[in-house]
Amino acid sequence: MIKSELCELLGIQYPVFQGGMAWIADGKLAAAVSDGGGLGIIAAGNAPGEYVREQIKIARSLTDKPIGVNIMLLSPFADDVAQIVTEEKVEVVTTGAGNPSKYMKAWKEAGIKVIPVIASVAMAKLMTRVGASALIAEGGESGGHVGELTTMVLVPQICDATDLPVIAAGGIADGRGVAASFMLGACGVQMGTRFLSAKECTIHPDYKEKIIKATDLCTMVTGKRLGHPVRSLRTQFARNYSKAEYGGMPDDELEALATGALRIAVQEGDAEKGCFLSGQCAAMVKKEQPAAEIIKEVIESAEQVLLKASKWTD
Amino acid sequence: MIKSELCELLGIQYPVFQGGMAWIADGKLAAAVSDGGGLGIIAAGNAPGEYVREQIKIARSLTDKPIGVNIMLLSPFADDVAQIVTEEKVEVVTTGAGNPSKYMKAWKEAGIKVIPVIASVAMAKLMTRVGASALIAEGGESGGHVGELTTMVLVPQICDATDLPVIAAGGIADGRGVAASFMLGACGVQMGTRFLSAKECTIHPDYKEKIIKATDLCTMVTGKRLGHPVRSLRTQFARNYSKAEYGGMPDDELEALATGALRIAVQEGDAEKGCFLSGQCAAMVKKEQPAAEIIKEVIESAEQVLLKASKWTD
Repeated sequence: MIKSELCELLGIQYPVFQGGMAWIADGKLAAAVSDGGGLGIIAAGNAPGEYVREQIKIARSLTDKPIGVNIMLLSPFADDVAQIVTEEKVEVVTTGAGNPSKYMKAWKEAGIKVIPVIASVAMAKLMTRVGASALIAEGGESGGHVGELTTMVLVPQICDATDLPVIAAGGIADGRGVAASFMLGACGVQMGTRFLSAKECTIHPDYKEKIIKATDLCTMVTGKRLGHPVRSLRTQFARNYSKAEYGGMPDDELEALATGALRIAVQEGDAEKGCFLSGQCAAMVKKEQPAAEIIKEVIESAEQVLLKASKWTD
Repeated sequence: MIKSELCELLGIQYPVFQGGMAWIADGKLAAAVSDGGGLGIIAAGNAPGEYVREQIKIARSLTDKPIGVNIMLLSPFADDVAQIVTEEKVEVVTTGAGNPSKYMKAWKEAGIKVIPVIASVAMAKLMTRVGASALIAEGGESGGHVGELTTMVLVPQICDATDLPVIAAGGIADGRGVAASFMLGACGVQMGTRFLSAKECTIHPDYKEKIIKATDLCTMVTGKRLGHPVRSLRTQFARNYSKAEYGGMPDDELEALATGALRIAVQEGDAEKGCFLSGQCAAMVKKEQPAAEIIKEVIESAEQVLLKASKWTD
């Protein structure tokens, strides 16, 4: 079965991370992924520190494998969460939406492996300098907050810019994506959208159904005008937002339009008011499965693809 | 050296196409690529049929290898060009910006292999039904007119939707991209941006220099509001256009703003008024080289990457 240096670095069985999706990636999902041999990651999002602590405890009660926490650095509770992950001694912290330099010393002293999510060469170089353990290079085909470069273009450039292990993210939903990521220079992958259909993922059933029924052109990016582009399913909400964005709605009204939309999607499944974050690869997600089964299927299929790689060079 | 079914289908040495870039891909560039073992493709763009015939003759005078013509189906001269490629018996026609069904019969009778550029599953199925010989699945990281899906997400879905050979395009500039494309299910690649730096590419020296000096976040997409998104270098022109697009400029003025901008970039290199089409991978293009050397370098490096694929499965 597939192994990489990432497995040794983190003490995990397969080089597969589950993306830290705000409002979605809780202790239960993270535990299921870690227990299945990957790395489950609890999303702190904008939640208070104590929520995160509680989710860590839930995960610990369900698995003794390493777990991670994703810290969204723009959160008003980022400092709290940064402290709590050291107290709870989570094995891995991934970071998004900014520069985690100010926490690095404390995290490293606590033995935490810090793996920032990055979307540019400059950020890769900076994070390498300040002592990251690895980097997640996330292409703009991913769901949620997106960068500009796609996985195909970003991953090789990040690999050229750092000696750290690189984890590819964005658009990866099956073994072909894993194998392709390895060819680009990565030694692991992070999948978000594929885990939305995990049995242990507690999003509203309508959200899950939307992902499983999604077709190829199912997502769109909104929020570019305000500088925070977000990829979500092309629902009525997303279309309305896009229209408002081009239609000259003032910035503060536009901001207000999106407030709470993520929670509404996850908890209520409301297609009119909810923002259903999703990567472009939703169409490749076909059914609900236990997280462990998803990991096994993806890894086994990646292995098959990689074993056939030599046929091109005969 | 790398071979695939595409080589046999088209009688070419390496499974590498040069993208049919309007105003750029002329007979000289196409001949250099074909002579180097790939498939050189003359771009018809919006040019009159007789221009295309002339470029075909130039290419034929420089190489006896197969050549292709890319027909932009929205061109006012598309019917003329469609006729001329049969008269000149080009080996391959690639098509963009539409549905070439009405020409299929004549082209196939003339022995031409028809290979549409597509960006969605629906178009892949339609083109398979009407008798295409292969499909180019082009991700939105490519330069020029772009679809929504990225190469990483599009290629596997197209491979699932057709039994035809699939050529991956978008974001591919080196051997890693070729190897990744194979893992995704493709049996060949098309590169555009990488060939902008070919010695035989006759764009303005300032255009070539901009590509060679480009950094990772060098491109942007404009034109979404009018329904024709285009990826180009982030120049003053592109920034101004983007501002006008969000700023409520009437559609006809916006349309006028872009008229001639491509020609100005290619022929005059004017950074203020020119639109410098480029894929996201411009940052991976490092120097001017003969087209044949580009192909050899890319193929040799892809081979190295593929030969190492089995290390992950030990």
